[in-house]
Amino acid sequence: MTASRVPQRIAILGLGVMGASIGMALHRAGVAEVVGWDPDADAVEAARELGAVGQSVTSPECAVSSAELITLAAPVPVIPELASHIVPHMRDDAVVTDIGSVKTPIVQQCERLLGERFVGGHPMAGTEMHGARHANPAMLRDAPWILTPTARTSEESLMLVRDLIASLGARPVTMEPDEHDRLVAYISHLPHAVAFALAAAVHTSVEPDGLALAGGSFRSGTRVAASDPSVWSHIMVQNAGHVTAALDRLLPILASIRDAAARGDVAALTCLLASRDCPPRP
Amino acid sequence: MTASRVPQRIAILGLGVMGASIGMALHRAGVAEVVGWDPDADAVEAARELGAVGQSVTSPECAVSSAELITLAAPVPVIPELASHIVPHMRDDAVVTDIGSVKTPIVQQCERLLGERFVGGHPMAGTEMHGARHANPAMLRDAPWILTPTARTSEESLMLVRDLIASLGARPVTMEPDEHDRLVAYISHLPHAVAFALAAAVHTSVEPDGLALAGGSFRSGTRVAASDPSVWSHIMVQNAGHVTAALDRLLPILASIRDAAARGDVAALTCLLASRDCPPRP
Repeated sequence: MTASRVPQRIAILGLGVMGASIGMALHRAGVAEVVGWDPDADAVEAARELGAVGQSVTSPECAVSSAELITLAAPVPVIPELASHIVPHMRDDAVVTDIGSVKTPIVQQCERLLGERFVGGHPMAGTEMHGARHANPAMLRDAPWILTPTARTSEESLMLVRDLIASLGARPVTMEPDEHDRLVAYISHLPHAVAFALAAAVHTSVEPDGLALAGGSFRSGTRVAASDPSVWSHIMVQNAGHVTAALDRLLPILASIRDAAARGDVAALTCLLASRDCPPRP
Repeated sequence: MTASRVPQRIAILGLGVMGASIGMALHRAGVAEVVGWDPDADAVEAARELGAVGQSVTSPECAVSSAELITLAAPVPVIPELASHIVPHMRDDAVVTDIGSVKTPIVQQCERLLGERFVGGHPMAGTEMHGARHANPAMLRDAPWILTPTARTSEESLMLVRDLIASLGARPVTMEPDEHDRLVAYISHLPHAVAFALAAAVHTSVEPDGLALAGGSFRSGTRVAASDPSVWSHIMVQNAGHVTAALDRLLPILASIRDAAARGDVAALTCLLASRDCPPRP
């Protein structure tokens, strides 16, 4: 067992709502100096105002030059690009983690670049709001934070990331990248797909006057449909195998609910709604 | 225009979470004496303890004998039965309303029994919790409360019910029974069907350890799946035409999301998630 280093300088690349929330949580925990970068100057300004970054720099290479831990908090398709961009500028002993919602493609690409120094990560927290100005470190408190080390990942890298997460009050959980991707297809990507589809079906069928009468079930069911569609389309495409499997599980259940309602079969419908083992459809 | 009577004595038949919440709201508004009945003695006791009813009686006929306004707060399939049961015991000038989530079949059957003295109603408020002990009059404050008078409904009956709803701080909204049923198929019944199906798909695919890692999207998306399945199967069957139409609107959107993810088409998927007009599927 290796004793964990405590990083003195942490870089966050990407200051959206998640990157900035992590920066604020690090700031509050007082664990390290945080240097941040984002291609959007407004995001950088907001992150500075919120105390999410102590120092902002104008390029990713400057951000990483003296960092011991680098957090890639960019959208999923950008993470491997960013990793490739910073490799020549990093310290030899720097450890890199990310917060992407899909792990297998990111871990494969980042390990090719970083080997034992990369630890895939995914905090199971978030919000439908976008941008650094909606950052809120409280969402990380007690949140599960999945890490996906592989046989290549060094114990030292894993411990560095795990200890840092624990110092923010989140709960590190370790699993295989593919186990993560299958799990989040069901507990996160499928709920997002459903919320977006429900919002689309209702918004294109009901006039605004009618929508204004909606109660809590519609609001809860479509809350996360306020998330950024382009962020989510990339996530779903990168996790297409598991996302389509999850939708292939959901669609027949919804079709069975439709058919049971159509034929007036209260017993079959109750069984379907109660998630019990139901007799086969007639 | 007829001046509205103020009812001195109101009967609530059915003391579930909604009936008891209405009783508590009436009690707080101090507008009338409330007499309540429920076939379940525990519900009656809870309603009395909460102040939802001032007087409880052991039969629906006793509850209605001197009431000027009668609220049928029973499950949807029971409402017409209950109306039929109380007709011989009601005052000649009593007005009857209900809070069922489907209006066309209830209005048709209740008008046959009660003519101009029936006003269909549906408060657009609720909770996934069941039972009088979860009653909360605050949910009615500012909530839209749909009323579905027809050509047969007397102006006096409508005004009595409308004024009472307004006195509870809710917002009366009037529409045709079928307009109501189409609207709630989209803004309430479809979100419930989706939440139940999502809960079923995920609970049968993911182990409890994995479920424990779920973030807000799964919790929001399945919140109302804690509702009583048998209550909702009756609602969906009674509103089968509109519910199947709403599911027929949703299912192809979800299938398109699945297909766009499967073929890696980020542009098409973004378009679908953004609820915009999208080009036809290839």
